[in-house]
Amino acid sequence: MKEILNGKELLLGVCYYPEHWTKDLWREDLKRMLDAGIEVVRVAEFAWNTVEVEEGVFDYSFWDEFLDLAEEMGMKVIMGTPTATPPAWLTKKYPEVLNCDIDGNVYHHGLRRHYNYNSLVYQKLSGRIVEAFASHYAERTCVIGWQIDNEINCETDVFYSESDSISFREYLMVKYGSLDELNKAWGTIFWNQTFTGWDEINVPRRTVQDTVNPHWQLDYIRFISDSANRWAKMQADIIRKYTKEDDFITTNGIFGHLDYQKMVNESIDFITYDSYPNFAYCLSMYDENDPIKDRKWSMNLAETRAISKVFGIMEQQSGANGWTSRMEAPTPRPGQLTLWTMQSIAHGADFVSYFRWRTATMGTEIYWHGILDYSGRDNRRLNEVKEVHEKLKALNLVAGSVYEAKVGILEDYDNLWDSEYDVWHGRVEKQSRKALFNALQKTHTPFDYVYIDGLTDASSLLAYEVLFYPHPTITDEKTVELLSEYVKAGGRLVIGCRSGYKDKTGKCVMDKLPGLFAPLTGADIPEYSLIAPDAEKVYVKWGDDEFEASVFTDILCPINGGRQLAEYTSDYYAGCGAIICNGYGMGRVFYYGSAFTEGAVRVFLKNLNVMSPYDKIISLPETMEIAVRKKDDKQYLFVLNYNKQADKITFYQNVKDIYTNQDVSGSLMINGYGTLVVEI
Amino acid sequence: MKEILNGKELLLGVCYYPEHWTKDLWREDLKRMLDAGIEVVRVAEFAWNTVEVEEGVFDYSFWDEFLDLAEEMGMKVIMGTPTATPPAWLTKKYPEVLNCDIDGNVYHHGLRRHYNYNSLVYQKLSGRIVEAFASHYAERTCVIGWQIDNEINCETDVFYSESDSISFREYLMVKYGSLDELNKAWGTIFWNQTFTGWDEINVPRRTVQDTVNPHWQLDYIRFISDSANRWAKMQADIIRKYTKEDDFITTNGIFGHLDYQKMVNESIDFITYDSYPNFAYCLSMYDENDPIKDRKWSMNLAETRAISKVFGIMEQQSGANGWTSRMEAPTPRPGQLTLWTMQSIAHGADFVSYFRWRTATMGTEIYWHGILDYSGRDNRRLNEVKEVHEKLKALNLVAGSVYEAKVGILEDYDNLWDSEYDVWHGRVEKQSRKALFNALQKTHTPFDYVYIDGLTDASSLLAYEVLFYPHPTITDEKTVELLSEYVKAGGRLVIGCRSGYKDKTGKCVMDKLPGLFAPLTGADIPEYSLIAPDAEKVYVKWGDDEFEASVFTDILCPINGGRQLAEYTSDYYAGCGAIICNGYGMGRVFYYGSAFTEGAVRVFLKNLNVMSPYDKIISLPETMEIAVRKKDDKQYLFVLNYNKQADKITFYQNVKDIYTNQDVSGSLMINGYGTLVVEI
Amino acid sequence: MKEILNGKELLLGVCYYPEHWTKDLWREDLKRMLDAGIEVVRVAEFAWNTVEVEEGVFDYSFWDEFLDLAEEMGMKVIMGTPTATPPAWLTKKYPEVLNCDIDGNVYHHGLRRHYNYNSLVYQKLSGRIVEAFASHYAERTCVIGWQIDNEINCETDVFYSESDSISFREYLMVKYGSLDELNKAWGTIFWNQTFTGWDEINVPRRTVQDTVNPHWQLDYIRFISDSANRWAKMQADIIRKYTKEDDFITTNGIFGHLDYQKMVNESIDFITYDSYPNFAYCLSMYDENDPIKDRKWSMNLAETRAISKVFGIMEQQSGANGWTSRMEAPTPRPGQLTLWTMQSIAHGADFVSYFRWRTATMGTEIYWHGILDYSGRDNRRLNEVKEVHEKLKALNLVAGSVYEAKVGILEDYDNLWDSEYDVWHGRVEKQSRKALFNALQKTHTPFDYVYIDGLTDASSLLAYEVLFYPHPTITDEKTVELLSEYVKAGGRLVIGCRSGYKDKTGKCVMDKLPGLFAPLTGADIPEYSLIAPDAEKVYVKWGDDEFEASVFTDILCPINGGRQLAEYTSDYYAGCGAIICNGYGMGRVFYYGSAFTEGAVRVFLKNLNVMSPYDKIISLPETMEIAVRKKDDKQYLFVLNYNKQADKITFYQNVKDIYTNQDVSGSLMINGYGTLVVEI
Repeated sequence: MKEILNGKELLLGVCYYPEHWTKDLWREDLKRMLDAGIEVVRVAEFAWNTVEVEEGVFDYSFWDEFLDLAEEMGMKVIMGTPTATPPAWLTKKYPEVLNCDIDGNVYHHGLRRHYNYNSLVYQKLSGRIVEAFASHYAERTCVIGWQIDNEINCETDVFYSESDSISFREYLMVKYGSLDELNKAWGTIFWNQTFTGWDEINVPRRTVQDTVNPHWQLDYIRFISDSANRWAKMQADIIRKYTKEDDFITTNGIFGHLDYQKMVNESIDFITYDSYPNFAYCLSMYDENDPIKDRKWSMNLAETRAISKVFGIMEQQSGANGWTSRMEAPTPRPGQLTLWTMQSIAHGADFVSYFRWRTATMGTEIYWHGILDYSGRDNRRLNEVKEVHEKLKALNLVAGSVYEAKVGILEDYDNLWDSEYDVWHGRVEKQSRKALFNALQKTHTPFDYVYIDGLTDASSLLAYEVLFYPHPTITDEKTVELLSEYVKAGGRLVIGCRSGYKDKTGKCVMDKLPGLFAPLTGADIPEYSLIAPDAEKVYVKWGDDEFEASVFTDILCPINGGRQLAEYTSDYYAGCGAIICNGYGMGRVFYYGSAFTEGAVRVFLKNLNVMSPYDKIISLPETMEIAVRKKDDKQYLFVLNYNKQADKITFYQNVKDIYTNQDVSGSLMINGYGTLVVEI
Repeated sequence: MKEILNGKELLLGVCYYPEHWTKDLWREDLKRMLDAGIEVVRVAEFAWNTVEVEEGVFDYSFWDEFLDLAEEMGMKVIMGTPTATPPAWLTKKYPEVLNCDIDGNVYHHGLRRHYNYNSLVYQKLSGRIVEAFASHYAERTCVIGWQIDNEINCETDVFYSESDSISFREYLMVKYGSLDELNKAWGTIFWNQTFTGWDEINVPRRTVQDTVNPHWQLDYIRFISDSANRWAKMQADIIRKYTKEDDFITTNGIFGHLDYQKMVNESIDFITYDSYPNFAYCLSMYDENDPIKDRKWSMNLAETRAISKVFGIMEQQSGANGWTSRMEAPTPRPGQLTLWTMQSIAHGADFVSYFRWRTATMGTEIYWHGILDYSGRDNRRLNEVKEVHEKLKALNLVAGSVYEAKVGILEDYDNLWDSEYDVWHGRVEKQSRKALFNALQKTHTPFDYVYIDGLTDASSLLAYEVLFYPHPTITDEKTVELLSEYVKAGGRLVIGCRSGYKDKTGKCVMDKLPGLFAPLTGADIPEYSLIAPDAEKVYVKWGDDEFEASVFTDILCPINGGRQLAEYTSDYYAGCGAIICNGYGMGRVFYYGSAFTEGAVRVFLKNLNVMSPYDKIISLPETMEIAVRKKDDKQYLFVLNYNKQADKITFYQNVKDIYTNQDVSGSLMINGYGTLVVEI
Repeated sequence: MKEILNGKELLLGVCYYPEHWTKDLWREDLKRMLDAGIEVVRVAEFAWNTVEVEEGVFDYSFWDEFLDLAEEMGMKVIMGTPTATPPAWLTKKYPEVLNCDIDGNVYHHGLRRHYNYNSLVYQKLSGRIVEAFASHYAERTCVIGWQIDNEINCETDVFYSESDSISFREYLMVKYGSLDELNKAWGTIFWNQTFTGWDEINVPRRTVQDTVNPHWQLDYIRFISDSANRWAKMQADIIRKYTKEDDFITTNGIFGHLDYQKMVNESIDFITYDSYPNFAYCLSMYDENDPIKDRKWSMNLAETRAISKVFGIMEQQSGANGWTSRMEAPTPRPGQLTLWTMQSIAHGADFVSYFRWRTATMGTEIYWHGILDYSGRDNRRLNEVKEVHEKLKALNLVAGSVYEAKVGILEDYDNLWDSEYDVWHGRVEKQSRKALFNALQKTHTPFDYVYIDGLTDASSLLAYEVLFYPHPTITDEKTVELLSEYVKAGGRLVIGCRSGYKDKTGKCVMDKLPGLFAPLTGADIPEYSLIAPDAEKVYVKWGDDEFEASVFTDILCPINGGRQLAEYTSDYYAGCGAIICNGYGMGRVFYYGSAFTEGAVRVFLKNLNVMSPYDKIISLPETMEIAVRKKDDKQYLFVLNYNKQADKITFYQNVKDIYTNQDVSGSLMINGYGTLVVEI
């Protein structure tokens, strides 16, 4: 049985940097952690030089000494591999390992993650240090698992080194076999971009308008993901040679240009997310008009769950955050540390490790506060960690339970990456993603993100009564088949505008739109347009409901059994179709011709009968979040108050407060930043 | 007789890319074009690889096949030379042909126009492909003309390659003969910039404050224009060896840093403009407070007419426009395609070629829509093209008529380019250009731009009752002579602030200001200032009229017969002269001490009796444009409604509606985006 | 006795560029200057090529001829060394002398100051030209002093050339002796940045997030200052070999990354400031909501005085200012030239040299106007200079008097430079600096800046009744000792939030905060936070006064005899300590837990009895400035009206108007931009 995420208990951990402190502090620190209920430390993820201070010369004594102490004290240890920060001697001797910007300006020593994944030298030297770590330390009894690298694709998720170009060519040779196929896939006949030799191809570089062929760009992002996944697998394969039974391998954080489905399948046991909701309060990022703020991290946690049903938090915010050069966020107010911890747990994390124990007194992150401040004195935040620990004792029965959702939002990497680079695609995607999340949150309608990637049949989709697939611009027959299977079996699928006009290369199809989706949706799109900036607001009328459209309008006509459910009421297309519904098997498909607004989402949820599934049990203000975790027919309902003001909730049945083990019913007040977990 | 712009008929064309589509579509496409009234296609301007896929190996079959079909179908063809997009094999083998930014960062393959004009290698290889195209295809009967390159100086109009520096030195040697002369011209004694060897001189490169000597900069822009013109002439000289009688040579679009007067004189028969008024509705560029919007393209069309009295449109907007990476504009609303076509014709274009037939399904321009969408199905826009074609049949009698204007605005390249780099000059120029255009448009006062460059006497100027020359900061004796000749013969000349303080090098004169303009204007400027940001608005009082001054104030005194017409009424110079009028021969000169506001322009137009010349014939709202084309004593009046709302106009005499050939009089409604052409 | 700043008279000068004008203008120009009361010219600071037009070939005739004329006419001359603008032949032959940006993009010829201080070649060639100038011209009787280079560290104060990296390494070897010490000082163990060879170290270069280790960065700025100071000393040492008795050495302007205390100690006799208050009215910089505007130059003059008790103005604004590429400021209004001259004199400048005589007709600075415009005709500004000269005759008795202030603001370079790079530190520093200046100005409370750097005991501090040291984030025992000595002797010290949490390396201390300040302040800081962006305004209540806190809150508790004076009244720390007062010896220390607002400063000034020290003598509006200079028990009070409107002041005693030598009492009007100097 794994030591964490084993479905038996909730566990607290903390990130610790023994190399930052004099050794005389170690024992006291571990003692104080254990006293506070912290049972796991994550260490060593930037500590290359502690073992190999000179090329090829290894000295294991530093971590041996620390692990000896950990074992003595009964502290569990997760070890990181130190490849996120190559030593100065390495980058000086082998500058080819460095990453650079699109113009070839090299990223130098001085921060972190300045290497590229495709340097053969760096692969060799990194493999050797990982092997050194794993072969020496994996057998230690206190070591319970491994973290690969640190925050892969953090700092930057684009790579322009010479090694990357070489590797990109190899990737394309395998993918396309011939230049003819590649030229066809990328549509290089446009603007005479045809390649006649493999060595003419590079990763995208500066062009006269900072724009390259978009199909090339899409393959480039796929290649970055592939590179990072090869990197993780190289390390995982080495570590697995040495791990004890039940030891796990993970990596931390979620970043761009990375197919995590693949990583979970081939390299790691589960992902551990790094959760910093306080970014919402960074001075330079704060948006006072955004009602969602730190609640947006529930979106990130849903993403995490979509990647890895079982997951933990490797870095949970415990203090103010910032760098010396940028980012300035305040100290969490009393209650926020608890709130954000419970947010993680509500979404499924059974292991929460705080970042970090003591605040660094040196380097770029002196403002990225840990639980303790520079002096290490006892403080308010340490007390709050202790209170969390007390709560967790009562909450252990939640361990292993599953987040409950009847609504799913479909995602896939091709569309995600295409919408990053293609601003027309990106604009609808961004609008709908935000509107869906906000409407679902405010109506207390839990949802899951669901990745199409890697699905082989529709069985797992049938767990959801309704699936939104906002803008599957890129699609293929396999995907359409999968969705058809879902609908045929009774599922209800809602698709937004701009669906199906691209194939897997990102090129446009020459079919009538919505392309491959036409049969399934019963919709035809004889005309379409961005909503003009001089248009008044564009409205959609669906029965008695009216809501605003956004960004784009597909002008719809029903075909082949489709039925027009709603129409536009504005601009020159007033009266034209805005929603087409098509019965298909036992289910139904809704093609909605615009991007989603919160208003649109609410009407869909209402008309499809999936809004506010717990409103018979509890009523609560929009400003609070609801989450339900289920296990063995027991449901645990989390209430999270993101406001600093207290507010009232009402239960319509008797429930049991898990923190206190007491029955609760009727109305009660939830404190500012307060949380409640009840069995329902 | 040329096949287009021959003064006999109005003609429609379209841009077509046979290389983008399977050959089985060609015949059907040409058929559908001809059915819609499209009689000309422009092809091949990015198609280098279709003929020379490997260095030095030429295969003409692709275009032979297409031209065979065109001839069979009766379609006329304009062929482009493909030098805007060098092949990948070329830039890989000869990287020196690439352009770069000011730091030497190279612009790579992946977009277009990434080459520099001065690479000897690129000149050689481009000359060879042009020769290949012309020698093989020019004899074809369906080929009626040639387009050189594509949108010269589009994407970028600055060049920093090593080839450019070498060529720049040669340009300067010819211009100045000696370093002494160059140092004097550039005032290099300032900040010790004196050059003591020719090899010390380069095109401008990065300096510590991104600023170089402005006289150097001015010569650099002249050099860019010279480079581009040499480029065009090199191609034109080759093509002319092979063209049939009556075949024409053109190039498309108008871009920066290019003396088009020179190009028209030495390389091309006429210019063809690329007109995309929908840029006014691009999401990221839209300015809801600008009343001019797509009407601003009438400014561009006036510029086109100033370059080339006879001109066509090579690319006329027919759909939504945008790239994958930037630019997002909506689909033209019903009527806008017609409106913008008529805007082009109203300003003098007798040939209008739409961009493009089918929308590209690949590459950066998948959102730059043609008449047809991706599927190629019949659609609303194709129907609108057909309607345009019907209108044009009635409008053929307009062909060869001339745009009528009594007001001219003088321009010259030296001041245009100086005002780009010199922010003090640029600020007055920009303000006055916009104010003049807006006031003339809103008062329905047609005007022409008139280039000083290349004029040898004042005869052509005498066509204008009034000439505005907003800010001739740079001037010389020849120009002053020309203007004096115009005024002496009865012309009225209006000059704005900051005139005459620079010579042709861009250095300031040590004369009393306005320098060479002092005798002509009868004005003296003992003091001047930018309008201070803490000043209240500054007003000018001219008789009973009062209007706002802008940006700058020359404080004026009359000398040598000048007479003070108006005074400032604000700030410490209240009561000082704001307009000096000087009688000269049979005409008059007005020196106005500030930049023009719309208010100022209206007062000048009124007091000089050139405002609203057709107000005895028609009254119409400010939101519509008027244009009159004249031929053989017949006048054709165009009314263009840029608003989406319908609005009323009133004729004070009987006129004939050309579309319908029916008489019209009194009040009538013009539809939203509606157009009307009447004979008056 | 020096010819300027000798305590005997006030003197006017002007910057002159004989090399810009034909020689026939020289005599007339000098004559007109002398007629206007201008007795000194500054020349030659960009004139390298006038003496060495070819490497190693020297020709002294140009300046010999000018100096002959100066001597004949009785004009005194300050000569510049021409090293700010290396010749084109030099940078072409030795490109290594050039500076570059952080990516290595070279700054080329075309502006000025494109060199680096650490190029051995440039040091050699600069030493040689300085030696040439000094050895040949210093003996001339008209030459009264020397200006080193021009505006050292202007244009840029960062340097990234290879020479800089080499020199940086040497600097660090001397400073740290060993890599172990350096690694410790920079905390390189963080993120595995440990250096294992000296050649791994460079000046900071591009990293993946444009951020380097902050301790490295701090040493880098110290190194830049050291480089510039070595540069100045190299030149001063050469010049001093040749100067006559009483000749002085200075340099002009105040710029970043330069320890001027050190420069004054080792290289120059005094600093001469370049004062351009009209920057406040530059179009692109104008802030209409800032009440301070050109008055902010009094802050700069106070900085100048802090560097160099005796100082002059080398470049005093006399016309509109701007470059061709950026900066657009209006012509000074009538009276402003006088106002700004008097502002300089009020703050202690007894020598004021205008920039420049004639306005340049060429190069980047054609809009940086001198007294005369391009034509050189007599004008309003020349008349105003003559009026200033008349006033100065009466004001000669002020010469040598000392600016009077009871309030000091402590500064030191470590905190100044740390706050530039560390955005957390910078935010409080910036807020408090502005608030202190504004509140002191508006309450007519004169102050001095006082540099801690170089102080060996507290004696000079005791001239001030109250010292503010807003945010001594970095401190050491020596500084705390010095401050303790000041307080012990009766001084009152006010310290703001964030004090004492860093040591001299910029690393955080592990003591309880405020670290070394704890004993002196009697304050403990168990918790702290940035003021959250979603917090309401945070207030501090001190007795009956309440004022707003800003940016940050240290939550304070009294310890060891400290006494809580004020508390926060907002957010979760309402009721917690906001000000702790500690008696220490005969004085008192106030620890204030936030950044200063104007409200906070006013309450401190009031409660510490140092507000508005002249309010028994004069009352005047907030919009005017007061300054008092004292000499031999006589006090000269300057009144400066920065408003364009006239306003009333009232004297409560009889005073003597120095301009008119007449008695004044009671109320009188001061003109817009008016000035008054009275003996009180």
